[in-house]
Amino acid sequence: MHHIENLFQSHPHTAGAENANLAKLIRSLDECKESCTACADACLAEPKPEMLRRCIRLNLDCADSCTAAARILSRLTEPDGDILRSHVEACAIACRLCGDECRKHETHHDHCRICAESCRQCEQACRQYAKSLGVTV
Amino acid sequence: MHHIENLFQSHPHTAGAENANLAKLIRSLDECKESCTACADACLAEPKPEMLRRCIRLNLDCADSCTAAARILSRLTEPDGDILRSHVEACAIACRLCGDECRKHETHHDHCRICAESCRQCEQACRQYAKSLGVTV
Amino acid sequence: MHHIENLFQSHPHTAGAENANLAKLIRSLDECKESCTACADACLAEPKPEMLRRCIRLNLDCADSCTAAARILSRLTEPDGDILRSHVEACAIACRLCGDECRKHETHHDHCRICAESCRQCEQACRQYAKSLGVTV
Amino acid sequence: MHHIENLFQSHPHTAGAENANLAKLIRSLDECKESCTACADACLAEPKPEMLRRCIRLNLDCADSCTAAARILSRLTEPDGDILRSHVEACAIACRLCGDECRKHETHHDHCRICAESCRQCEQACRQYAKSLGVTV
Repeated sequence: MHHIENLFQSHPHTAGAENANLAKLIRSLDECKESCTACADACLAEPKPEMLRRCIRLNLDCADSCTAAARILSRLTEPDGDILRSHVEACAIACRLCGDECRKHETHHDHCRICAESCRQCEQACRQYAKSLGVTV
Repeated sequence: MHHIENLFQSHPHTAGAENANLAKLIRSLDECKESCTACADACLAEPKPEMLRRCIRLNLDCADSCTAAARILSRLTEPDGDILRSHVEACAIACRLCGDECRKHETHHDHCRICAESCRQCEQACRQYAKSLGVTV
Repeated sequence: MHHIENLFQSHPHTAGAENANLAKLIRSLDECKESCTACADACLAEPKPEMLRRCIRLNLDCADSCTAAARILSRLTEPDGDILRSHVEACAIACRLCGDECRKHETHHDHCRICAESCRQCEQACRQYAKSLGVTV
Repeated sequence: MHHIENLFQSHPHTAGAENANLAKLIRSLDECKESCTACADACLAEPKPEMLRRCIRLNLDCADSCTAAARILSRLTEPDGDILRSHVEACAIACRLCGDECRKHETHHDHCRICAESCRQCEQACRQYAKSLGVTV
């Protein structure tokens, strides 16, 4: 079990079983942030980075979105549904667009293939969580 | 003129006049991030921080949202309207809720009064920008 | 294997075997960031948060430091030793101080015990990496 | 007067006159973060971004370092000198290296000239603050 999952169980306001999914979402967000940051950097190191401009741009945006969402979701005190929902939805959009773009380059660049997979997993985790909040992204 | 406004004018893809508003929005986002981070800290230092739990939580969320939005909006290359719109909208929601909560404490805590003002300005700047993207938040 | 480790192997400038340790460090940094963010929130939810002021403050600082270090270390292109070293060292300091403070509260708060463990692991990973750069933190 | 300066004056632990400099440093850190984020993006949009790889890499690192330092310095509660010093020093190093690199491209790219100026101002503000903590960076 990851630290964050254990930690949620010891939170004064713990909601019990539901938090395993939340912990998993936070892990997905951080994995996606890592992949996007590293993929932007790998794209920049390719011989013709001008061919990967949109990929780099979306990588950087997606990493920023995941960073914010992971922080916001790590807080259980006095949660506000509108904030959680809007940020998870915004993050799912960034993950979808970044993953779609990475997918276009996956035959030429393995880092884009791996990043597309991270984005897809994170987008799904965001949508699953948003659904649990009572909204379809 | 701030550096960011000058810098936008020298960007290869500069869109001209429109960017003065964008630069102003980024300044508002960073000012709001600063106010929220400092207000959370000031609330924590008050004699009874347990009275300010929701304020601290929303301050931290709003700071994270403003941080992400400011970074995303600072990029002009290969912009994606859906990403811009969803993150500016999510940020406007965080600013509104955080500002409303701070307002409740403004008679007792001057830091909450100042932070509410930052949130209000930032929310308005977000809405104005979202409107320029063709959407009403 | 985590995505980030795979991704490093497909980077144009990959340095081979060394990057498994780097991927592990990035995982530690993100785990510590998660624990610190969640521990600050759990402390805030305790009946007397004023008893945990220093813990919350250090949690928030440590989370910010880990966030920056994880991003900087995820880039392999044109690395600069002075930047890597100074940020990993600064992060090790934040982890040490935050972990020491959490340790003081571990008998009363399980979230502080878990967070102290995350901080200790991350501090060790930072020191090990700094040593590989040719410096003892 | 900026919000952050007003806000510091209403903090329960306010230290009075010293905080005007701190507020100024936080403004410099956020300005430098903005310039570095926008300069990385403008470099990416240039016809031959492969000529600007080191500049983009350092821009991104410097933005991350400034983001963390600005957050840490915005907290006045239970400050720890070792954390403040190490992060301000690390940030001064990032600003120096990023500014030096930008300077090399200033005759060809105005965004690099403006960013170099932001970095230089921020580095000086960091050094001045570190000196006030009793250390020369």
